[in-house]
Amino acid sequence: MNIAPLDRQFQHQIQDKINNKTKPVGALGQLEALAMQLATIQSQNRCNPVEHIKLAKPIMLVFAGDHGINQHDLSIAPSSVTGQMVMNFLQGGAAINCFCRTADIELNVIDCGILQVIETGDGGSESPMLVNQRLGCGTNDFSQQSAMDLSQVTQGFLFAQQLVERLVDQKRSVILLGEMGIANTSSAAALFCALTNNDLEQCVGKGTGIDEQQFERKIQLIKMALARVANQTSEHTDSTLRVKQILSELGGFEIVQMVGTILAAAKAKLTIVIDGFIVSVAALAAITIDKNVQDYLIFSHVSPEQGHQLLLNGLKATPLLSLELRLGEGTGAALAFSLIQSAACFYNDMASFESAGVSV
Amino acid sequence: MNIAPLDRQFQHQIQDKINNKTKPVGALGQLEALAMQLATIQSQNRCNPVEHIKLAKPIMLVFAGDHGINQHDLSIAPSSVTGQMVMNFLQGGAAINCFCRTADIELNVIDCGILQVIETGDGGSESPMLVNQRLGCGTNDFSQQSAMDLSQVTQGFLFAQQLVERLVDQKRSVILLGEMGIANTSSAAALFCALTNNDLEQCVGKGTGIDEQQFERKIQLIKMALARVANQTSEHTDSTLRVKQILSELGGFEIVQMVGTILAAAKAKLTIVIDGFIVSVAALAAITIDKNVQDYLIFSHVSPEQGHQLLLNGLKATPLLSLELRLGEGTGAALAFSLIQSAACFYNDMASFESAGVSV
Repeated sequence: MNIAPLDRQFQHQIQDKINNKTKPVGALGQLEALAMQLATIQSQNRCNPVEHIKLAKPIMLVFAGDHGINQHDLSIAPSSVTGQMVMNFLQGGAAINCFCRTADIELNVIDCGILQVIETGDGGSESPMLVNQRLGCGTNDFSQQSAMDLSQVTQGFLFAQQLVERLVDQKRSVILLGEMGIANTSSAAALFCALTNNDLEQCVGKGTGIDEQQFERKIQLIKMALARVANQTSEHTDSTLRVKQILSELGGFEIVQMVGTILAAAKAKLTIVIDGFIVSVAALAAITIDKNVQDYLIFSHVSPEQGHQLLLNGLKATPLLSLELRLGEGTGAALAFSLIQSAACFYNDMASFESAGVSV
Repeated sequence: MNIAPLDRQFQHQIQDKINNKTKPVGALGQLEALAMQLATIQSQNRCNPVEHIKLAKPIMLVFAGDHGINQHDLSIAPSSVTGQMVMNFLQGGAAINCFCRTADIELNVIDCGILQVIETGDGGSESPMLVNQRLGCGTNDFSQQSAMDLSQVTQGFLFAQQLVERLVDQKRSVILLGEMGIANTSSAAALFCALTNNDLEQCVGKGTGIDEQQFERKIQLIKMALARVANQTSEHTDSTLRVKQILSELGGFEIVQMVGTILAAAKAKLTIVIDGFIVSVAALAAITIDKNVQDYLIFSHVSPEQGHQLLLNGLKATPLLSLELRLGEGTGAALAFSLIQSAACFYNDMASFESAGVSV
């Protein structure tokens, strides 16, 4: 992808601006690091650091897809619930709708390949919130065969590229990512394991609340898949091809498109807010393709899902929130957005010692 | 004070409403406990649980006062900075102004007794944001003598009572508390220690960033004060009188008025959002007077200030944020407010499984 690392030429000027605000040095903790990151991203290709961080027209992109592996009953819900929840999103009734309304974030839902096409009609496929980027009617059962063909991964990246181009045309500077897909923690845990050297047992969790029997089955099925993948992907040395191959083996459609979106958005120098475990795995895949991606990412929260804290530790990422959220949909990202706005607001509008006449 | 404990007769109905939202049970983590608390508070004296949690007209109250003990140079700043920062608040330039603007929270600054009366003029004492509740021109040096007379504590509680009556008349349901006072972590640490059985060394921190020499001096001065207080307050058994005596010994004016405000607001069944270490000490004092107060409190964040986590642990309180904030002013409370709004929003507006046609 060739993503440029952040040019940090204005780092000292930005830090000076932050330090001259009417507060003790460092007293705003993580918000200061956040302001530094936002200001650095928005100061690229400029002659001086930005005076104002702009977070205009934030948009939440919820990527939805179904997973063949759920025929083994690996979730608290059947796969049909993915489509039902997409309808709930379009009708405004889900948690992510509430949190986007509270934070004044626009919401789009991307159908990346749920089981059935959303019917036309009230709040259905005619909804301006719904984006059709279908790669199929759910993935294959990845415990038995590849979740999808490599060509579908390539098509997913292309869809993502086109999506990001539209967002750039709309002059957006920040995007937030969420997901919906029954059983997608199985796919995410398998991907996390395949992309790293972590033990499977450390990567797999209980998702939204499965029982011990389902949990054991989940681990065994992922183990089978990883054995197959280990044989098939070890020959590649090109990191992009290797990650694409792993994605085609372990899926899902929504995760593939999030990886593509993160890569394209980082290339376009957008700020990208990452939600929970599944979106974080997509971020990890994108970082594995090009490590410079991480400069553009904000990790919104850590969930209780086994593996999430481990993943964040591996990236040396400090999440903004830790609220025991395990819903997905982008809820953590939406909740963290007001903190991001507050970081921008203090950078933009807070008085300096000089301007306020404070004698510290 | 006789504060009523929360009547939890609707607990099961509220929990059912939360559980029937279109999400796995418990998936919104701490926000679900928050929604339960808010709904329970607002369902008092009703025949049925509230359908909608109301957070209309939130107001941040920043209590400001000066501390005689700072003549020993216990802060990174001289006491004159308290007044300068109050002017900064009135002119809209401080961090708390930024965060209140971002979250659409009204801001009032209560002069509880800073060194000098704010001069009239631009943004000064004519500001509608400034409330005059002065108890003096800074407290006495509490290492040498009582910070104030007991009558000043009583007057502080009276001011607080009148303030809360106005807020109730204005139909407010939620208040947020912050503070400004150079050296007030000294007063807060001393109070924390006197109110509990914790070791002094565990209660005292470095505030906004003092050096080792100042830190040692801070500990020694507090030790002297605590020895005096131990002699003078042990005879009382009435908890209200004991706490008032401790407050008069160790000050400060802003802490006294926060204790009074928390008591009066809990009595009025308002929801009260607590900021960092100093406001938390005021909350602890109020809880020591009447333990039922805690039902009405939301602890917004934990700061790196030594003692804050210990205090929260003692109250079994789980803060919403942990962002390494050590500024005070109410900044943590203001930042957490959007989470509180989001908890209300999901309770109020999120679809149920039935209404959304989701088959879990």
